[in-house]
Amino acid sequence: MTQTPWAATVLTLFPEMFPGPLGLSLSGKALNSGLWSLKTVNIRDFAADKHNTVDDTPFGGGPGMVMRPDVVDAALASVEDQPGPVLYLSPRGEVFDQAMAADLAAGGGVTLLCGRYEGIDQRVLDKREIREVSLGDFVLSGGELAAMALLDASLRLLPGYMGAEASLEEESFSEGLLEYPHFTRPATWDGLDVPEVLLSGHHENIKAWRLAEAERTTRTRRPDLWTRYRAGKGSGEVRSGGVRMSAS
Amino acid sequence: MTQTPWAATVLTLFPEMFPGPLGLSLSGKALNSGLWSLKTVNIRDFAADKHNTVDDTPFGGGPGMVMRPDVVDAALASVEDQPGPVLYLSPRGEVFDQAMAADLAAGGGVTLLCGRYEGIDQRVLDKREIREVSLGDFVLSGGELAAMALLDASLRLLPGYMGAEASLEEESFSEGLLEYPHFTRPATWDGLDVPEVLLSGHHENIKAWRLAEAERTTRTRRPDLWTRYRAGKGSGEVRSGGVRMSAS
Repeated sequence: MTQTPWAATVLTLFPEMFPGPLGLSLSGKALNSGLWSLKTVNIRDFAADKHNTVDDTPFGGGPGMVMRPDVVDAALASVEDQPGPVLYLSPRGEVFDQAMAADLAAGGGVTLLCGRYEGIDQRVLDKREIREVSLGDFVLSGGELAAMALLDASLRLLPGYMGAEASLEEESFSEGLLEYPHFTRPATWDGLDVPEVLLSGHHENIKAWRLAEAERTTRTRRPDLWTRYRAGKGSGEVRSGGVRMSAS
Repeated sequence: MTQTPWAATVLTLFPEMFPGPLGLSLSGKALNSGLWSLKTVNIRDFAADKHNTVDDTPFGGGPGMVMRPDVVDAALASVEDQPGPVLYLSPRGEVFDQAMAADLAAGGGVTLLCGRYEGIDQRVLDKREIREVSLGDFVLSGGELAAMALLDASLRLLPGYMGAEASLEEESFSEGLLEYPHFTRPATWDGLDVPEVLLSGHHENIKAWRLAEAERTTRTRRPDLWTRYRAGKGSGEVRSGGVRMSAS
């Protein structure tokens, strides 16, 4: 590869977690081929005292520990030359979605700040105007797994990560529907047949059946997405944040 | 430990990804102490031909490959004795949240089916009435990272995983608000002071300030949660699926 790799930088107290799962399968191959690069920064290296303290008790009381602003700020200062936005993984943030993954993939990279304990002192987030991003409405014990999921979702949208065919398919589902069901061989398994239309070779009928299935599934499983899909259709708007398919 | 460990079973084409990040930090300590157990099943071991084929092209055409129903079914049959529900990680599923994590933590464990490629033949999901769970509105290259996040969110709710103090704190945020901001030492950093009320020692005022901050943050960042919170408050309902805090 002669092109500049898409640059992922991760600030964490657990650099040994990386690349972890991202070092295997497609993301691992892409890492080895230089499509993306991974740099980890151990926040603990920026502790200022001899005990390498990174956290302290919260002002105002309460359980747990909070990561110190001076330590996190120093860690962030060390990676100011990295391309792409700085994101802090936090359940207080805006919710990550496919549109954000596409935006990130279209850029030069991303810097991800992973918190542990009760979180990070608010002042360093405010001072640096760091965007907070949440994976969803649940609490993890740290930002690392959220960072990996965000990276995986973004990486697979990089040109050259998957075949051209798969990329085209992706376009066709950018309108915000859940995917239609999949079937493969054997055509009859355990007394269950594949839907007949899929064996017909009639491309228009297959397309119509898949759209109807995608709409039915979205309507029944995700009324929230269905409402947005219907609204977008009415206004002619094409949602870039559409949910797509395949395994996750 | 004399109690039966909370049993996580993961069916995957990449068993070498596990425990991965879950083998470190709090989840790693809990794994080593026997609070939970982890069993991985390599779906490829259940391929029936000499090439160990697990997938095939989709009926009806389209890119990518689909995991065969017979192979996945055989893998699932091998773990029918495992406690807890069987969940398939898929962007077509219901969206994972803190309430689901709490439900899982309250049970005996969970079996997680991780797809790769375009997904799994629908017939095996239908036949076994497998619940599909999505981490959010984005696409991952496989279910493994979603499985890890789901496990981490569930594991930290197991009794004994964290201190009793942290568990109590959790209760107080079960009403569906984003968390208030955190501050720790130094009290003045880079010209920025910690909010004065937090240094006052006046517990009622601190509590009121934190609630106001949590409400303000939720209202501005997550109108969807705010609407639900207001509705729940009006009806006196206590949401068990509340978003809580700390780092994710």
